[in-house]
Formats: sequence, structure tokens, C-alpha cells
Amino acid sequence: MTDQKSPYQPVPGVRLSSVAAGIRYEGRDDLVLMELPEGARCAAVFTRNAFCAAPVLVAKEHLATASPRYLLINSGNANAGTGEQGLADARASCAAVATLTGCRAEEVLPFSTGVIGENLPTERLEAALPSALEHLREAAWPESVRAIMTTDTVPKLASRRFAAAGRTAVVSGMAKGAGMICPDMATMLAFIATDLAVDQELLQRCLSDAVDVSFNTITVDGDTSTNDACVLAAAGTLGNVPLDDTESADFLAFCGAVEEVCRELATAIVRDGEGATKLVTVLVEEALDYAEARRVADTIAHSPLVKTALFASDPNWGRILAAVGRAKVEGLDIDAVRVWLGDVCIVSRGGRDPDYTETAGQAIMEEKEIRIRVALGRGEAAAELLTCDLSYDYVRINAEYRT
Amino acid sequence: MTDQKSPYQPVPGVRLSSVAAGIRYEGRDDLVLMELPEGARCAAVFTRNAFCAAPVLVAKEHLATASPRYLLINSGNANAGTGEQGLADARASCAAVATLTGCRAEEVLPFSTGVIGENLPTERLEAALPSALEHLREAAWPESVRAIMTTDTVPKLASRRFAAAGRTAVVSGMAKGAGMICPDMATMLAFIATDLAVDQELLQRCLSDAVDVSFNTITVDGDTSTNDACVLAAAGTLGNVPLDDTESADFLAFCGAVEEVCRELATAIVRDGEGATKLVTVLVEEALDYAEARRVADTIAHSPLVKTALFASDPNWGRILAAVGRAKVEGLDIDAVRVWLGDVCIVSRGGRDPDYTETAGQAIMEEKEIRIRVALGRGEAAAELLTCDLSYDYVRINAEYRT
Repeated sequence: MTDQKSPYQPVPGVRLSSVAAGIRYEGRDDLVLMELPEGARCAAVFTRNAFCAAPVLVAKEHLATASPRYLLINSGNANAGTGEQGLADARASCAAVATLTGCRAEEVLPFSTGVIGENLPTERLEAALPSALEHLREAAWPESVRAIMTTDTVPKLASRRFAAAGRTAVVSGMAKGAGMICPDMATMLAFIATDLAVDQELLQRCLSDAVDVSFNTITVDGDTSTNDACVLAAAGTLGNVPLDDTESADFLAFCGAVEEVCRELATAIVRDGEGATKLVTVLVEEALDYAEARRVADTIAHSPLVKTALFASDPNWGRILAAVGRAKVEGLDIDAVRVWLGDVCIVSRGGRDPDYTETAGQAIMEEKEIRIRVALGRGEAAAELLTCDLSYDYVRINAEYRT
Repeated sequence: MTDQKSPYQPVPGVRLSSVAAGIRYEGRDDLVLMELPEGARCAAVFTRNAFCAAPVLVAKEHLATASPRYLLINSGNANAGTGEQGLADARASCAAVATLTGCRAEEVLPFSTGVIGENLPTERLEAALPSALEHLREAAWPESVRAIMTTDTVPKLASRRFAAAGRTAVVSGMAKGAGMICPDMATMLAFIATDLAVDQELLQRCLSDAVDVSFNTITVDGDTSTNDACVLAAAGTLGNVPLDDTESADFLAFCGAVEEVCRELATAIVRDGEGATKLVTVLVEEALDYAEARRVADTIAHSPLVKTALFASDPNWGRILAAVGRAKVEGLDIDAVRVWLGDVCIVSRGGRDPDYTETAGQAIMEEKEIRIRVALGRGEAAAELLTCDLSYDYVRINAEYRT
């Protein structure tokens, strides 16, 4: 349902390869190695799920002690819910990369996505590493993003070129995740790189800010699966003096590019939502604060009834109203609430808008991209989420995932 | 999927009738009138949805000023999201009953269930009232419960006989609601009556306590739709001195019977969940407090991934674990968490239990009634919910509801 919106650009100094390690799938690549040049800096954000996967724990541990040289990513197995053995397996994979390349194990970050609760077949993974190292190249993003797909139906790549430090810099990213409503297990991974040199602290701030307005505003059922991770690497191959001023035009340009790449990837994940037939924006405004606006938006975006109505192209606005009504907004004045589908006002003064016609609502609902806007009439805060509909295929995909 | 578990018993002095008013459906009854004898007492609980329906507002208003003589219940139209016109329509219906019977309009309580946002066709409803009055009889519970069904596939009736006040008393109830995950709009209605005389305050306490452990522990997506209501009427036709001592054996026997009727009706609602193929109990124990236990149980019971795995009879325990992990339990020690499917321990020490086998898990998942038990290892509090699976039919029913 989606196509890449920006032409893909390699990042000078960042090399990748994808190979078939036979971890779970047959006849396709399932292991990616990403190499960063010496001196590169990495920022990362991880899932907040209490049951975070072994590779998440190990990646955090390694990031705290060293600057990464290699990212090792497998699909087909999440290495989550695997206890001590899972930690040992994640560490062993990093050690195997270290042995072959001469770096330290702490300079390798592991990432896994796939089924929870099965042990990682480390011997297969390790057997594939020499080939992965041999095939590293800067242009391997397209095959690498395919290798990390699980229930994804399209690869997700995004790039931006921008002026910074008197040069033309690039930010490129790849993501996997067909997460919708509730992403399966070990769902979202995103890897973004730039050729700029950026101070470590600024790099982390840039990534956290970009994730807040992109990956954290798509409805991945709350926000966390066991393996979610997003990495931003600054290769430093552009030769600039590392960006270190948060107010500088260069840093702002860089942040803008990272945010655009994150938004494009996040949107691609929702478009590829499991069984999704529609892309739905939920905007809640005039709330007392962001948390209130977000709570109402979450309730609408997670409602199976709203989602099935969207699937059926049924302007059943009562379901939206009922969702707003149970979102625990203290003292909500229902007469002040207005709801729009696209530009059509459907609810005002606690009931159907007098000018609303079913024909007008129906026309909006039949579109592939739908905007639901709710004004609460209480304040100035707003929140926006991206979500999709709930279809037969969502049930099929998730009922059949392991079989 | 369900059958009535207790033989149905009429309640002396409580008469009902059902008629076809043509509100929405063709060829079936859709209007019920329930008559209470003079001196009867009524307790009620209502939805907490901010967008509560017009009949809910009017019923609350009337209950505050008079003891009800008539309950007027229609299906096919929720009279919700209908603004001022909705209130006027609900009041007009009550006034019509009052005119025909000689009671006051305040002595009539209106209830509606069905589609939101369409005006109640009061003229059709009123035209059917004379026939409804004419056919009132004590034995009309079975046809009345059918008349209030919407997406329900089975009628839900429950009765208990018990000794109180030196006599044999009866509690009977009917409910509608195929609400699951997220009940449609105006989903759950329950009407319960006894021939005992009970003090008003005690009647309300008895109902509130019973609802807390029955209708409020089935996953009706949070807890509230726009029209949810549950009424308990004490007809007083048994001739006893009104129960007025909360410690008396008679009152405790009465509360026990009401609780059993409520639990039986609530279970019947979940069994009849839209598209449901399985009845699932989620028990979370060893939590710090009830709210924590309930939050974890809610997260599991509302997870589309857990629900689709249940539908597929797939012991995909990783999905249960992931739900526990994102339920925002502060400082959860994952090594202390254990999870059971039926009697089979599937998770211990943060991962798959060493003795667990897929065969054992599969055997449990193929049953029609499944129990998921989670021990958090933090304290003494527990919460239990009833829910069901998420199937293709849930999507079909809710995608096609209005068409």
C-alpha cells in the first residue's frame, strides 16, 4: 500500500550486508550486519516494556561502555522471553562478530525481531557471519531492509539530503514493523545513519525528539513491544567539525532531516499495518493538556468498533462519540465537543450536527486516507496519532502467525 | 454457545409484555413494558460514559423523584447522541405510558438499546403501547428478553429461589449484550426483580456490590457504553417486612441470590460475545493492590494479539508476557512473574518454564473454556476478568452492523 517517498541514498562510510542464515525463514535473507566507521557516534531509544528482550538488554549495556562499530540484526526470532540463555546467546553473537573483525564485543549491538520465547540458533547465525562480513557495502540498504521484515509487506526506507556544515549531508533510515493496533512481539526496529559528525549528547537529543513526534505517535498498542529499538548513527565521514551547538542552523537542519526520515518511516509502518486498508489520522484538540488529548486520541485509535467501522467505510460516528465519552476526561462538557470526519462536521452540541448528512460522511469514509478530528472545547493542547482500520486480514495474520 | 443454567422463574407481581413496534427491526418484537406493583422499590446503576444516552439521563432524573411503576425498554435505537430532541423523545415516551395507565410520567423509566445517533421514532413506539399494556403477564420474561436483543445470539435469563423471611423468595433477571472487547454503543441492559420487600438503601447496596463482581468484571472495553444500565426491583409481593438489616441472614441470602443471577447473566454475555468461540478467564494475583491486578488483567484481556492467539488455539504465551510487560507495573521484577494456561505453567523466571512443552500448552488452548493465570510476585491482591477471543466474525459483525 505504500511506496518509498524519497529516493534512497547510501551514507558514506556506513556499510551493510544481508545474508540468509536460516534462522527461521527459508529462501530469504534474515541476518543484517551494519558497519560504522571508527569514530562514529550512536544514539538509541529502546522499548519500555518490562519484559524487554535479551538483545535490548545487551545493546543498552554495550552502548553504555563503548561506541558501536557493528550492528547485528536478525529476523525470525526475537530472543525475548528466553531468560539467561537469551542473554548468553545475544552476548555470544556479539563476541562472534568481535572475533572475526578484531573489535571488542562491547562494540557490537545485537537486535532481534520475530517470534518470542524460542532460543536464538546462534550456531546458524555465527555460521553466516563470514559471508556477511565479506559482502559489506554502502549500497546494501535495499536488501538489508528486506532481510529484517517479518509480517511487513513492503520495505521501508527513507532519505533526506540537506545542507549542513557547508556541505551536503545525508540522513537515511530503514525500519521494519507492520505493527498495528498491537504490534506483534518484537515489532519495530529502525536504523538511521548520517555522514555528519555530531556530538553524542546532541545526537541523543535529536533522536529522542524525532521519535516523540514519529514512532511514538503511531498506535503500536500503547508504545512498547519487547524488542522495539531505534538507532541513529553519526558516521562522521563528511569531515565536518562535530555539531555541538543545539542552537546552530546546522544542528537544526540535521534535526529537521532526522525528523522527516522518522515520520516517513513511521507513516510507512502504519500504512503497512497488519490487514490495514486505510490510513487514519486522529487529531484531538482543545484539551487541557497533552496527556488528556493523547488519552482521547488513544481511546479512539484503539477502539475495535471505530476500527471496524473504518474498515466497513461506515460513518458510524456514534462509535467515535462513545470512545470520547469513555476516555475519562474529568468534567467533560459534551455540548462543547465537536467531531469532524475530514472537513465534514458530524457532531456538535452533544449530538449529530444539524447540517450533517449521511451522504457526506459516507463520501469521506470511502477514501483511503481519513482524518478524524475531535475538539474538546476545554483548552489549547492537542495530540495527533496515526492508525489504521481493523480488517479480517488482521485476524488472519495474527491467528496464523506461528503456523 | 450458552444455555440458560437455571430454570426460569416468574416474579409474583411483576408483569411484562413484548410487542413489535417496528422501531428498526421487522418481524420481531422490539418493545418491552415491565410493570411493578405499587410500593415496589428500585435500585439502578448506569453507564459512566460522558456521552450517556437520553434515556439514561431521564431514568436517573425520574428515579430521584419517584418509585417506578413501569420500565419501558426498546431495542433497535439507542436514543444516544440525539441531543435535546433525544431528551424530549425519552420524556414523551414516559408521558405516553403515564397517560395510558394513570401513573405519573416520573414513575416510568425509559431504556433504549441499538444504533446511536438516530432519533427515536416515538410515534411508532407510542402506537404499540396499548397492545403492550393489554398483554402484561408474569410469565412473559422469555419473550421479553428476546425483544431487547440486538447483536445477541441467545437470550439471557437467570433465576434463583432462596429462603428469606420464613418464605421462599425468588430473584429473576434478564440481560442483553453481546458486547465483547468493546460493546457496541448501547450495549448492556439488565433487569432483575424479586418478590421480596427490601429497604431502598439496602437494595442499592446489594445491586452495586453484585454488579462490581459480575457485569463490571467482563471486558466491556473499559466499562461503559452510552446506554448501559442495570435495574434491581423489589416488588414486595412476598408480604415480608422490608429487609432493613445489612447483617441479617435474610439480607445476606438475598444478596447471594442477586450476585449469582448477575454472575450468570454476565457470563452469558461474554459467552455470547460477538464472534466469540471461547470463554476466557484472566486471573491476575500477587499484585500490590486491586488496581494493579486489574490493570494487568485488562491489558491481557484487551490485547488483540492475545485474543487472536486464543481464536487460533495457539499457545503463543509470548503475547501474554508482552501484555504483562506493558501494563505499567512500576518496578516489576520479571523473574518473579509466573504464567499458567489452565494448570500448565508456561512462564517462570522471565522466560519459558523449563518443564513447559508446546504439546501441553496446545492441549489447553484447544479447549472451549480457557483460564489464564498470572502471578506477579509482589503482594496479595488479585483481580479476575471474563473475556473471549477475537475472531473473523467479530470483524464481520461490527463491520456490517448498520448495513
